[in-house]
Amino acid sequence: MITTDSSTAPSRRPRLAAGARRYRSSEIRDLLAVIEQPGVLSLAGGLPAAAAIPTARIQVAAQRALAAPGRYGSLALQYGPTVGVEALRARLAAGSAAYPASTPGTALVVTTGSQQGLDLIARVLVDPGDPVVVEDPVYLGARQVFHAHGARLIGVPTDSEGMDTERLADLLAGGLRPRLVYCVPNFSNPSGSSLSPPRRRRLAALAEHYGFVIVEDDPYRPLGFGPAPPDPISTHAPDHTVFLGSASKCIAPGLRVGWIASPPWLFDTLVTAKQSIDLHTPPLTQLIVAEILADDAFLGSHLEHVRTDNAARASDLHGAVADFIRCDAPTGGMFLWGRAATETQAMLPRAVARGVAYVPGAAFAVTAGTHAHHLRLSFATLDGPDLLAAADRLRGAVCGPTGCERE
Amino acid sequence: MITTDSSTAPSRRPRLAAGARRYRSSEIRDLLAVIEQPGVLSLAGGLPAAAAIPTARIQVAAQRALAAPGRYGSLALQYGPTVGVEALRARLAAGSAAYPASTPGTALVVTTGSQQGLDLIARVLVDPGDPVVVEDPVYLGARQVFHAHGARLIGVPTDSEGMDTERLADLLAGGLRPRLVYCVPNFSNPSGSSLSPPRRRRLAALAEHYGFVIVEDDPYRPLGFGPAPPDPISTHAPDHTVFLGSASKCIAPGLRVGWIASPPWLFDTLVTAKQSIDLHTPPLTQLIVAEILADDAFLGSHLEHVRTDNAARASDLHGAVADFIRCDAPTGGMFLWGRAATETQAMLPRAVARGVAYVPGAAFAVTAGTHAHHLRLSFATLDGPDLLAAADRLRGAVCGPTGCERE
Repeated sequence: MITTDSSTAPSRRPRLAAGARRYRSSEIRDLLAVIEQPGVLSLAGGLPAAAAIPTARIQVAAQRALAAPGRYGSLALQYGPTVGVEALRARLAAGSAAYPASTPGTALVVTTGSQQGLDLIARVLVDPGDPVVVEDPVYLGARQVFHAHGARLIGVPTDSEGMDTERLADLLAGGLRPRLVYCVPNFSNPSGSSLSPPRRRRLAALAEHYGFVIVEDDPYRPLGFGPAPPDPISTHAPDHTVFLGSASKCIAPGLRVGWIASPPWLFDTLVTAKQSIDLHTPPLTQLIVAEILADDAFLGSHLEHVRTDNAARASDLHGAVADFIRCDAPTGGMFLWGRAATETQAMLPRAVARGVAYVPGAAFAVTAGTHAHHLRLSFATLDGPDLLAAADRLRGAVCGPTGCERE
Repeated sequence: MITTDSSTAPSRRPRLAAGARRYRSSEIRDLLAVIEQPGVLSLAGGLPAAAAIPTARIQVAAQRALAAPGRYGSLALQYGPTVGVEALRARLAAGSAAYPASTPGTALVVTTGSQQGLDLIARVLVDPGDPVVVEDPVYLGARQVFHAHGARLIGVPTDSEGMDTERLADLLAGGLRPRLVYCVPNFSNPSGSSLSPPRRRRLAALAEHYGFVIVEDDPYRPLGFGPAPPDPISTHAPDHTVFLGSASKCIAPGLRVGWIASPPWLFDTLVTAKQSIDLHTPPLTQLIVAEILADDAFLGSHLEHVRTDNAARASDLHGAVADFIRCDAPTGGMFLWGRAATETQAMLPRAVARGVAYVPGAAFAVTAGTHAHHLRLSFATLDGPDLLAAADRLRGAVCGPTGCERE
């Protein structure tokens, strides 16, 4: 019975939407709590080193951006276009020392980091229950987004050449019809592997044949230690690939500037969804990124410095753990992915007690129970002495007092 | 028949998600195109005047923000917490010259503008088909978000005291069970009216009785010309109200800094959803807002200047149109809402041809066919002479060559 005299009725608690159940905190968040514990050296996070963020150059760019005039006051501070500021879009289209020119025929929308790009793509391409193919092990942020949109995740194993496209072809031949195939083509997170050129072409051909969309999430392209990475997958299937770029790993993560290069048939829907989500990304952070991407001399030398520095850290870490963690030497990106003799989830409290954190492989598993002996170590965050101290603490956790139990 | 030889098959076009149909471009976007036409004086947009944006103070705050150290390099440039930077959350909790302290018992999460706040709330509280009550006429950005999440919108008329809560009570007594009731309590967009204190209490009591959530979207609170607005609705029903604040109207819209003060039962879900959407809002823009909100002397004098300036513009515009547009004199905010003798949608091309733009009332209608004679005029963007020139062009469009057709 309903009474209109609210004072006599008990207060009723509103309920969450059914869809809200799909929002689960990612392991990233719990890991950040571990990172913040005093005394713990963290190999867990995906944070660039302080030295990899060009703060002084950003200060100059910020002052210039704040002085840029627009029709209704400061361009950096007034409302702006949903697609992003023109200076940044033009630079991304033309290319820079960090990223090649965007694939011809694609259209650019700036996003608040590429996490937002993933969310936007899932919003407009995934209905609850739709199958989505991911690399296994998978990037946690992507899994969280696809899960939030109700996708049914199908993992395809990766090896040293990236996602096993023949395994994917078998699944497709067997009837699987995914809406998306999600891929980190260069120095993937967490596996560190890159998709080989033949597999890029194979994946592109499969997308065109079966009519799915490839989500090419490429934040690590600027962070390779060797020759330039192969052409993006989008060059092989421009109408079936949505490319995600990011300034987070090559300039600064806190600027939250990413972008989507989309085929034309998808573009308007992405822009309309972006408008509904946050109107637009802050013009200030976009203008900072635009100026730095346009400064080829600075950016080239900055990236050279970051790559050299990261290569040294990667080599140090690999050298320090290779006798008790089975792993390949990293060739770029931020992570070393390896296998220990023990279950890494169970080992984590021991490691944290010794003052070192990492991410257990099980966190990245698409199929429950897999990657139980693996772990992800970031070589990008800690400086040399801390990195070696962290590796030493990890050795203690893996090997114990009686010496290393080599697998 | 499926062949694995992709070279012989035609390329298949992927399709959009069924849910993507709900993303429709808002009238805001089309209006921005009108604004950008050279020679058109726009009364259509909701842009603060250039003089209302404290660019020099923001430049100082930006340099300080970029110099703030964090554990892993610049606090402004590294990854940060999903809930927002501590300096801003503490300031919002404590209150400022622009906003009172957040309601005790609520928890704060910083958003990328309050547009993102609306989207977050809809994500976690609205399933497709759920009824959502809005003011009629309604703010376009809110309608777009609720529509995107599949809500069934029910409009409740507003008058000079804001939403007619007795009409809402009748609908509730008749069986309506909304998930949300959306309200702009101060100087609403587009109506300009504010919810009276008795109606605030009545709405709060209804929410507690029927178990719905009030979304209290309050960007215009700092922009009143007279006495301070009444206590927020959230003070009357803290467990049933989600409060949205914004730095867009009192500092700068391009910073894209808003916040949600949420009851505890909703907080974790909002934060987890926010993490999935964009990890976090840029710390740089958050730190700029935190510094300015903490500078009470500056902010007080800045807001006094903006209010005085806006009051003069509102008075100028009202004085210039009152003989051919039936309207109340604005008491705050950015908009004058009025009624003309002719249908304003049909009149718009004539007005643009004369070099003036506005938003036809029909754009804000929840029930199709209503507000056909209304229009929304922004007094906040144009400076004095342009504002009077715009009013004069509007007079020409409404009245024609033969004199004004007064309603």
